[in-house]
Amino acid sequence: MNETRKHILAESEIPRQWYNIQADMPNKLAPSLHPGTKQPITAEDLSSIFPLELIKQEVSQERWIDIPDEVMEKYRIWRPTPLIRAVALERALDTPAKIYYKYEGTSPAGSHKVNTAIPQAYYNKIAGIKNLTTETGAGQWGSSLSLACSFYDMACTVYMVKVSYQQKPYRRSFMQIYGADVIPSPSEKTEAGRNLLAIDPNSNGSLGIAISEAVEVAMSNRDTNYALGSVMNHVILHQTIIGLEVKKQLEKIGDYPDVVVGACGGGSNFSGIAFPFLQDKFMGTKVRAVAVEPTACPTLTRGVFAYDYGDLGKLTPLSKMYTLGSSFMPSGIHAGGLRYHGESPLVSQLYHDGFIEAQAFNQRETFEAAILFSKTEGIVPAPEAAHAIRGAIVEALKAKESGESKTILFCLSGHGHFDMGAYDQYLAGNLVDVRCDEEEIQRNIAKLPQI
Amino acid sequence: MNETRKHILAESEIPRQWYNIQADMPNKLAPSLHPGTKQPITAEDLSSIFPLELIKQEVSQERWIDIPDEVMEKYRIWRPTPLIRAVALERALDTPAKIYYKYEGTSPAGSHKVNTAIPQAYYNKIAGIKNLTTETGAGQWGSSLSLACSFYDMACTVYMVKVSYQQKPYRRSFMQIYGADVIPSPSEKTEAGRNLLAIDPNSNGSLGIAISEAVEVAMSNRDTNYALGSVMNHVILHQTIIGLEVKKQLEKIGDYPDVVVGACGGGSNFSGIAFPFLQDKFMGTKVRAVAVEPTACPTLTRGVFAYDYGDLGKLTPLSKMYTLGSSFMPSGIHAGGLRYHGESPLVSQLYHDGFIEAQAFNQRETFEAAILFSKTEGIVPAPEAAHAIRGAIVEALKAKESGESKTILFCLSGHGHFDMGAYDQYLAGNLVDVRCDEEEIQRNIAKLPQI
Repeated sequence: MNETRKHILAESEIPRQWYNIQADMPNKLAPSLHPGTKQPITAEDLSSIFPLELIKQEVSQERWIDIPDEVMEKYRIWRPTPLIRAVALERALDTPAKIYYKYEGTSPAGSHKVNTAIPQAYYNKIAGIKNLTTETGAGQWGSSLSLACSFYDMACTVYMVKVSYQQKPYRRSFMQIYGADVIPSPSEKTEAGRNLLAIDPNSNGSLGIAISEAVEVAMSNRDTNYALGSVMNHVILHQTIIGLEVKKQLEKIGDYPDVVVGACGGGSNFSGIAFPFLQDKFMGTKVRAVAVEPTACPTLTRGVFAYDYGDLGKLTPLSKMYTLGSSFMPSGIHAGGLRYHGESPLVSQLYHDGFIEAQAFNQRETFEAAILFSKTEGIVPAPEAAHAIRGAIVEALKAKESGESKTILFCLSGHGHFDMGAYDQYLAGNLVDVRCDEEEIQRNIAKLPQI
Repeated sequence: MNETRKHILAESEIPRQWYNIQADMPNKLAPSLHPGTKQPITAEDLSSIFPLELIKQEVSQERWIDIPDEVMEKYRIWRPTPLIRAVALERALDTPAKIYYKYEGTSPAGSHKVNTAIPQAYYNKIAGIKNLTTETGAGQWGSSLSLACSFYDMACTVYMVKVSYQQKPYRRSFMQIYGADVIPSPSEKTEAGRNLLAIDPNSNGSLGIAISEAVEVAMSNRDTNYALGSVMNHVILHQTIIGLEVKKQLEKIGDYPDVVVGACGGGSNFSGIAFPFLQDKFMGTKVRAVAVEPTACPTLTRGVFAYDYGDLGKLTPLSKMYTLGSSFMPSGIHAGGLRYHGESPLVSQLYHDGFIEAQAFNQRETFEAAILFSKTEGIVPAPEAAHAIRGAIVEALKAKESGESKTILFCLSGHGHFDMGAYDQYLAGNLVDVRCDEEEIQRNIAKLPQI
């Protein structure tokens, strides 16, 4: 009853550097290619949409990268985040396993996404940029960038995947409170959007098309840049603060995870908690890293490792990654943040090299896990985070079966306060599990560019 | 830039006792009276709806009351809460004042209300009670009690003020995730509800009528008790953990407030942060305590100090308090948690005795403060908490005018994630300020019972 429940660091203990896994991974990343020339992309190619500091971070091989003071000031509103021992969930599962969750939902925008939104806005601000464009699925990323732009007095335009825009009107309001302009995607505002609407006027949208729209606007306006909420190396770099804090927190109580679990869409949530532990794994420490994705968008478990575009409009560089094909249009599942055809090149390479495992779960079993978690631990999770909960529960039940006292760590990446519509549907029994059509996957993969 | 932003306590530093201001206040409370006999209420009178431990706390004169281990285990999911220096807000106001806010919105249900929901559910649980009934306005209290009941495996029925039920469908969903039964009030389920609907079928409801419904159900079922989210002495006792934590946090950095600001509806939010400082004030320390209320329900600033019922149906004891009359029906302002005709007897006595100041603000100026706070500090506040922000800003601007470097402390009692409808209306320019009709106040006050 009186064992420690929550592990807090002092403000002075927040890590002052991000961890760059590129310094340590055994096999380096394949270069990203220019979408036109198919030649390795240059810093100059990227400079029309990203500031120099982020481009440097994208390719840096330095192990540790300093966090600017101006970013630390904002981080310190909610960081360090708590690491909580899920004692009530453990009791409900009757498992000998210890379950810890790192709760990123205490950030003002409600998820881990703020960890990268703030440095991205900051580096753009000091580069003289006035506006940022971006896409958002579930709305977690769009909310975070809206917040970051309001912190640095910049304009923000968010292309929101239409199905999420409709399911979550209050996510839109939330971004508007921070002053953002929120546009349902596909829209008539861009060529990419107009092209898609000409073919499919009722399109639900996807992250792929929303990215195309945001990139197009950034490319054609000098004082406007683009910001991405996941996938890219610099985004994942910023998220490592999650796992770095956890390592300090666990060290204080003399514990270490047997398995680290994170939800995986574009990869930044999973990487944020897992990469600092992979650093140990490269040196021989036994720790498993499990990426959890939805069966409706099973990039790692059913995709291929190949060069592909990051967006539907083929405006982004080609990256070598696990992909379902950039034309893959996932069904309108509620974990909108996991509806992405591709995967971070870093996660992809490390999965390919055997350092990461992947599992896919159906929508309803993740909501079931979310309700159990809410009733025991009290926090109502975002549907994306519910995938990690499901993954952790599966590990805890395995430990129960084998009688082993495992230490399980997962990232509770955000709260579900803007996902009540999805919960309503689940509680009313109206949510369906969407299995991905194998033929559709093959059809999209067949369209991959030949590199 | 590098001054400390956030002040965190270790889990081991959470206070282990609540502070009971009844031990120290110069003038004791007038006794509460039985609604039928008008004689001082006895423990037995209260035992049909409250467990013995809470009745004891209601009348205790002990200064410190131990927090049970089982309650501490739940508190430790989110407590201690952060005390944050609002450096970005200070810069935006260009004030020499230091502004600190204690953020209670990190609790799983999103507000300070969980501080009392958990011990109330716990004491009922060990008394053998199976069901709790309650009322809720904005939904913060209903969410908190729903959560607490799920923690202790009890049933929970929430009578939700109809105007809030309609404005906030997702609040209902949130409570249902925890397994609660949520009923719009006035309802056909109780005699009190049916009586009101017979007179006014389109009633918006109020906390007063919702309380009547919840109390009626608790009185007529043996294994069912009633739980109140504010007003009563034991509720305010539990909330003092807020101010006790702040005192420790400020002590560590050698600071002390010149003024403490809290929003005031029933009084538990304000008391929670202010009462531990009033303990010092009784001993001669100079500290101001400012209770902020809406002009649409100006209990302290325009009510009278007299015996009145806590509910519309006159089922509750008569308490000596500031009141607008139990038949007062406030307009449907968005800060639903502040729509209560009465006031905590403790706050009332201390206001009457000059230890507390009160201010009333209009709805729109509180939303204006909320938007400024969101854009600078990042956290989108509940409309109730926005009243405290407005109060703090007024103090900061006074300091700017006088050139004094004051230390201002306020309670940011909850987040506004379920209040997007209200923010939408504010941003669209559709919110109106409702001034309270003086004749209506006088009419209701004239109906006060003659004691």
